[in-house]
Amino acid sequence: MASLSSSLLLILVFVITTASSSASVRTYFPGTFVRSSLKKVSKNVKPKLPYEVHYFPQNLDHFTFQPNSYKIFYQKYLINSQFWKKGAPIFVYTGNEGDIDWFAANTGFLLDIAPKFRALLVFIEHRFYGESMPFGKHSYRSAKTLGYLNSQQALADFALLIRSLKHNLSSEASPVLVFGGSYGGMLAAWFRLKYPHIAIGALSSSAPILQFDTITPWSSFYDGVSQDFKDVSLNCYQVIKDSWAELEAFSKQGLDELSRDFRACKKVRSIYSARDWLWEAFVYTSMMNYPTESNFMKPLPAYPVKEMCKIIDRSSPEATKLTRAFEAASLYYNHSRDEKCFELENETDDHGLHGWNWQACTEMVMPMTISNESMFPPSSFSYKDFSNDCKKDFGVTPRQHWITTEFGGSNIEQVLKKFGSNIIFSSGLQDPWSRGSVLKNISASIVALVAEEGAHHTDLRASTKDDPQWLIEQRKQEVEIIRKWISDYYSDMKKDYN
Amino acid sequence: MASLSSSLLLILVFVITTASSSASVRTYFPGTFVRSSLKKVSKNVKPKLPYEVHYFPQNLDHFTFQPNSYKIFYQKYLINSQFWKKGAPIFVYTGNEGDIDWFAANTGFLLDIAPKFRALLVFIEHRFYGESMPFGKHSYRSAKTLGYLNSQQALADFALLIRSLKHNLSSEASPVLVFGGSYGGMLAAWFRLKYPHIAIGALSSSAPILQFDTITPWSSFYDGVSQDFKDVSLNCYQVIKDSWAELEAFSKQGLDELSRDFRACKKVRSIYSARDWLWEAFVYTSMMNYPTESNFMKPLPAYPVKEMCKIIDRSSPEATKLTRAFEAASLYYNHSRDEKCFELENETDDHGLHGWNWQACTEMVMPMTISNESMFPPSSFSYKDFSNDCKKDFGVTPRQHWITTEFGGSNIEQVLKKFGSNIIFSSGLQDPWSRGSVLKNISASIVALVAEEGAHHTDLRASTKDDPQWLIEQRKQEVEIIRKWISDYYSDMKKDYN
Repeated sequence: MASLSSSLLLILVFVITTASSSASVRTYFPGTFVRSSLKKVSKNVKPKLPYEVHYFPQNLDHFTFQPNSYKIFYQKYLINSQFWKKGAPIFVYTGNEGDIDWFAANTGFLLDIAPKFRALLVFIEHRFYGESMPFGKHSYRSAKTLGYLNSQQALADFALLIRSLKHNLSSEASPVLVFGGSYGGMLAAWFRLKYPHIAIGALSSSAPILQFDTITPWSSFYDGVSQDFKDVSLNCYQVIKDSWAELEAFSKQGLDELSRDFRACKKVRSIYSARDWLWEAFVYTSMMNYPTESNFMKPLPAYPVKEMCKIIDRSSPEATKLTRAFEAASLYYNHSRDEKCFELENETDDHGLHGWNWQACTEMVMPMTISNESMFPPSSFSYKDFSNDCKKDFGVTPRQHWITTEFGGSNIEQVLKKFGSNIIFSSGLQDPWSRGSVLKNISASIVALVAEEGAHHTDLRASTKDDPQWLIEQRKQEVEIIRKWISDYYSDMKKDYN
Repeated sequence: MASLSSSLLLILVFVITTASSSASVRTYFPGTFVRSSLKKVSKNVKPKLPYEVHYFPQNLDHFTFQPNSYKIFYQKYLINSQFWKKGAPIFVYTGNEGDIDWFAANTGFLLDIAPKFRALLVFIEHRFYGESMPFGKHSYRSAKTLGYLNSQQALADFALLIRSLKHNLSSEASPVLVFGGSYGGMLAAWFRLKYPHIAIGALSSSAPILQFDTITPWSSFYDGVSQDFKDVSLNCYQVIKDSWAELEAFSKQGLDELSRDFRACKKVRSIYSARDWLWEAFVYTSMMNYPTESNFMKPLPAYPVKEMCKIIDRSSPEATKLTRAFEAASLYYNHSRDEKCFELENETDDHGLHGWNWQACTEMVMPMTISNESMFPPSSFSYKDFSNDCKKDFGVTPRQHWITTEFGGSNIEQVLKKFGSNIIFSSGLQDPWSRGSVLKNISASIVALVAEEGAHHTDLRASTKDDPQWLIEQRKQEVEIIRKWISDYYSDMKKDYN
């Protein structure tokens, strides 16, 4: 099994220098990849949100007391208080690796349930994303500035901001609950574990907190994507699996033909541009395999994997497998059918992407491989190569075992069955990230809600008239559990004050 | 009530510049004071310990990824493996603000119980104390180096070291328990709360984790010291209480007489030197009011507060109150009766002391006042003055609310009754720090063991033939609880692997 010859990370970030060469890139961060377009999308879609924008003067470094540590930056957060009354719960979304408006726009669940709880809604932007740039436009300049971008600092940001907010609202007794999806879901769960005095509970949706070290098999993510396609159509899976060899067969002289076949707006510089373009479509569609129409990464129909496979299964048997894969991927890029041609090589670098790359090169080391059973080309993971690339790109060495040292993960059932409480880990088995998430109840109040037909944090999306029954049920269960946490909290408080 | 005119901290550290003036010092850190002599003592007493010395290559900064963060320093730790067998428990002492040999020498409890559990004993030195100096002799140079000295970094040090040690011993399944007294006890409790995946339980002895913000009344520490004396003899308390006014009456011209009265080796430069000398004796004696002879800060007889008060109560009625207070304090400084004269102004600065001052000026803000009911001169606390002094001394501003943000403390019963497990908070009510400690059971497995006659982490000391029954019982209870944690751990593990 050869090491993947190109890095999705590097292609997206450094497309000019690396995508044209298959040998110059070796590392491989699907985690990065999967999250890479968030910011890009958010720039395109600026939904009108029912939130007020605020900025909190935040400490640069909570864990040292250097002269620099005291630098203040302005952290963005959004507030909706239309349903709130003083003393009622505060629901906080622990922002992930992108601008907070975009997460607010895609977490309609909180707006849906706020009236039931008379809850205040707060969406806090993660440092170094969106507008929350500690060093302004220089924030991404080097390891000296980026050094302050990591999850522990982000959690401490949330703690300080929440405490200050409650104080300013004179509502110190309000119970705080944290919510998050994906990396934001990891942060929500970790926040409850590290700051139980600030949050009484967490809804952690599609949070692959077990995707570190050797806790989860390294091939699980791509096995998950592949399984989604295989479940719909074995033929579809096989066509995609075989298409890569056809693509590899294109020589440098064939780039004109390849560009034409892929309807590229500009001639591509490398076959790897086409590969990564396909790849992104299949991975995101697997993650966004929602039961309703959606517009998370891109506009997609309901059950998009099924729709993609329909295209493949119904296409002309004379067409090459690569062409059929291309047509399927077009669904992802052109569901609206507005695109005349495709930008296969997106050369813009947005900070949302680069920020996650930094995190992946320091703390968020999620080793991934691709097994022979996957529909993607097999690939191994070499920590050494990965580390070398990080050194080259950012001047830092990843701390390979840091996340599991700081947050745990190994033997999580044994560790948490008698420690901690009030966490919902919700997952959808369509989501390839679910394999690195908590899928079993750990204790009476650390529970897993697993939806077989769910995708990447489906539950956090706004309800629609087309929601299937299982989704309605899942959200209802979440509301009931949260209601119990809150009611227990108020009862305890009453006891203490009586 | 006037603000205390002199700072114990500053007197001990900067005696030359400040002790001669009563106006130039305002802030007041009994916490610092109480811990100030640890290092000094440890330098004098170098007991032969049954431990091997090791050094662990430790990361300078766990929470940023600056180029500097990756600097390695060597953290000292001690190991005793004479009772251990692979797979058996590992007992870790989470070192506090001083060199680790000294804590090992004064935590005989672990050696006493190790054979029962076949436990490995590990004493880890806290960064920036003892030999564990990240910047060698320059470690205390400025906020730029000292910036890395704080409790969260120390906890992460422990986590990394323990994980690496278990790996190197090929004993990853060994349950780890953490132990500590005083600040080390705070660290042990916080370690269990923040790193439950690394330590299955904590014995946190005399740990004033509630001495922050407004959780505990600010006057409680000195009320506690005073109560110890009052309980033994109301006359003794009153003599000490009245002695300060007599001392204040000494003019600058009276320093010769004062020096003679206090048997000073050298003429004192300020009446405040005498005051602080007395003060230290009363505070430490209250903390070390052990039921047996001891040699923790200084050699002391059993029940030393009673002994001090005997001196006062039996002294000549013609003697001034100040003389009687001096004679009582002499018990602390000269129990062995070897001292011909007293060094009232100790001008040496040892890093153990200065390190805690740094911590007090950054994160460990424990406001303290002295009430009218105390036997010490009344004093208020001004955060502004305190902060100004910290700015002057170290160039930093304290983060007044940081500890309670990071570790909680307010409403601790409500927060932890349904969160966390396996912590023993042991306290002795003779110890003035007990008032800022957890004195009530929080849940079935977060329990308080409170000994009315106990002093500052009495339970962690080696057993002696003179131990009173209550102390034997307290330690027995601790062993039983710990045994249950360990047995539950092994049962869970067995279940998981069967």
